[in-house]
Amino acid sequence: MPRQHRPLPSRRNTTRAMRNLDEHTITAEVLGRIGTKTDPRLRDILQSAIRHLHELAREVNLTEAEWLAGVRFLTRTGQMSTDVRQEMVLLSDTLGLSQLVVAQSHRRPPAATEQTVLGPFHVEGAPVRISHGTMLGDRSPGSPLFVSARVTNGAGIPLEGAHVDVWQADGEGLYDVQKPEWELGRAQLRAVFCTDEQGRVSFRSVMPTHYAIPTDGTVGEMMRATHRSPMRPAHVHFRIVHPGFDPLVTHVFAADDPYLDTDCVFGVLSTCLGTFIRREPGAAPDGSVVNVPFHTLDYTFILHESL
Amino acid sequence: MPRQHRPLPSRRNTTRAMRNLDEHTITAEVLGRIGTKTDPRLRDILQSAIRHLHELAREVNLTEAEWLAGVRFLTRTGQMSTDVRQEMVLLSDTLGLSQLVVAQSHRRPPAATEQTVLGPFHVEGAPVRISHGTMLGDRSPGSPLFVSARVTNGAGIPLEGAHVDVWQADGEGLYDVQKPEWELGRAQLRAVFCTDEQGRVSFRSVMPTHYAIPTDGTVGEMMRATHRSPMRPAHVHFRIVHPGFDPLVTHVFAADDPYLDTDCVFGVLSTCLGTFIRREPGAAPDGSVVNVPFHTLDYTFILHESL
Repeated sequence: MPRQHRPLPSRRNTTRAMRNLDEHTITAEVLGRIGTKTDPRLRDILQSAIRHLHELAREVNLTEAEWLAGVRFLTRTGQMSTDVRQEMVLLSDTLGLSQLVVAQSHRRPPAATEQTVLGPFHVEGAPVRISHGTMLGDRSPGSPLFVSARVTNGAGIPLEGAHVDVWQADGEGLYDVQKPEWELGRAQLRAVFCTDEQGRVSFRSVMPTHYAIPTDGTVGEMMRATHRSPMRPAHVHFRIVHPGFDPLVTHVFAADDPYLDTDCVFGVLSTCLGTFIRREPGAAPDGSVVNVPFHTLDYTFILHESL
Repeated sequence: MPRQHRPLPSRRNTTRAMRNLDEHTITAEVLGRIGTKTDPRLRDILQSAIRHLHELAREVNLTEAEWLAGVRFLTRTGQMSTDVRQEMVLLSDTLGLSQLVVAQSHRRPPAATEQTVLGPFHVEGAPVRISHGTMLGDRSPGSPLFVSARVTNGAGIPLEGAHVDVWQADGEGLYDVQKPEWELGRAQLRAVFCTDEQGRVSFRSVMPTHYAIPTDGTVGEMMRATHRSPMRPAHVHFRIVHPGFDPLVTHVFAADDPYLDTDCVFGVLSTCLGTFIRREPGAAPDGSVVNVPFHTLDYTFILHESL
């Protein structure tokens, strides 16, 4: 008897389900189509994506008109994306996906500087500049800012030769890539420095302000439709790379900014608050004399050894 | 005592959670940002989308490199989409989302013709042609096909004046929009007809064959990476619209096609199988004489009254 069994009911159901799929039976059929030779990691991710996509559509009983609106929204988000206008990244940022992935990818000990989103305004290949004496943003609006940063390991030992990629908005809240005259060779408020033997870089730039993310695209439509604030608190971006350490991508936020608790990309971390000190006109940290009020920022980045 | 309570712990946690969000606490914060004035339906859909997107990323412990690959994949899918190359629709089709939404949007009584996906090759505004005597695809490869279709209500009463939008691939498996010389005014194998007093349309076209969906884009990359067949069984598309009836979007599939059980967009329904009969050279249904073998298709579409 045990040897003479009929085909398993589940198998027969599967065979029948290849046609006349309904909103429930279709999910197993789609998952089952992924070939056995597929890279196992890709299969896991894709199967999870398919399950969640289908569950979303069933859960809200998505209509064809809503489906089409979603398809068009994603299509337009891709279409308006360029090397310097990364609308799909911005969508991920404003849906909290980017910071979620960052958080689960960089669990660090409390002493190490925390990771936050890269954001849509980073550009690979920014000009390499000499630290100590360089002025960024000579054509950018904003009051002067003198940044002095130190890079150390977890024991406070300075790290020489670390690459420090810096980018920031100007005093009107705009990045250089957002301006029509943008070209990489004429980058403003964007450079790569190298730390000296004391683990230091310093440079002059302009004081960034809080700003609205670009709202003239699909993300802007979403923010308006959901009555969300598009504001981000003032910050300077840093990406710091040194052999043997987990690359650090982070911001230094202005500790007194009014938008710290409503950052539209959910990226604010207490360990990434910097004190931008307002100074009266006079001698600046770089030895020059400045005849308008200016700000200074001193900040230490603590890298985390790679495993 | 009851009146003099401290702030609720949950409220305090929420306040704290606005900074230092981790991969778990971020979801509630993103959901909470959707404004109270948001359209309730949009809020429901977006909240479900955010929850499923976050759960997917946590479930597979998505890395930054995988996140970036996904962002780039969706960006390119949008970028390569045009009016006639709807890659985002094709992605939805091949992930089974389109047929899922169609299935849950058109629950019909057993007698009515079932709904299947619109697909990426429909074009609005196809030329209106006179039924009975029209030949579609005069420059398209393939052996002759004579289609006679009837449109009725659930009681078998013919529906006069129904608009019948027809589009199909040719005998080499290509739609007109896939060819470089495509322009709407020179549409091949694509037209809108109007049913006569007997609820009929008839036309001559070419016998479609099974075909591979376009595999030179992002969807093709996915199909290859997951070792999936890109084939669709041979079919003719119909969209039939008549006042007072649920618009019918469907295919008529060749009942003997070898790919019926592995349709890559999951759209095959038993009630949508048509018998394409092979005929020897001789007298054709339209009164002409055809000196090569040809096919005929007779099919009745049963529309479902709208509520």
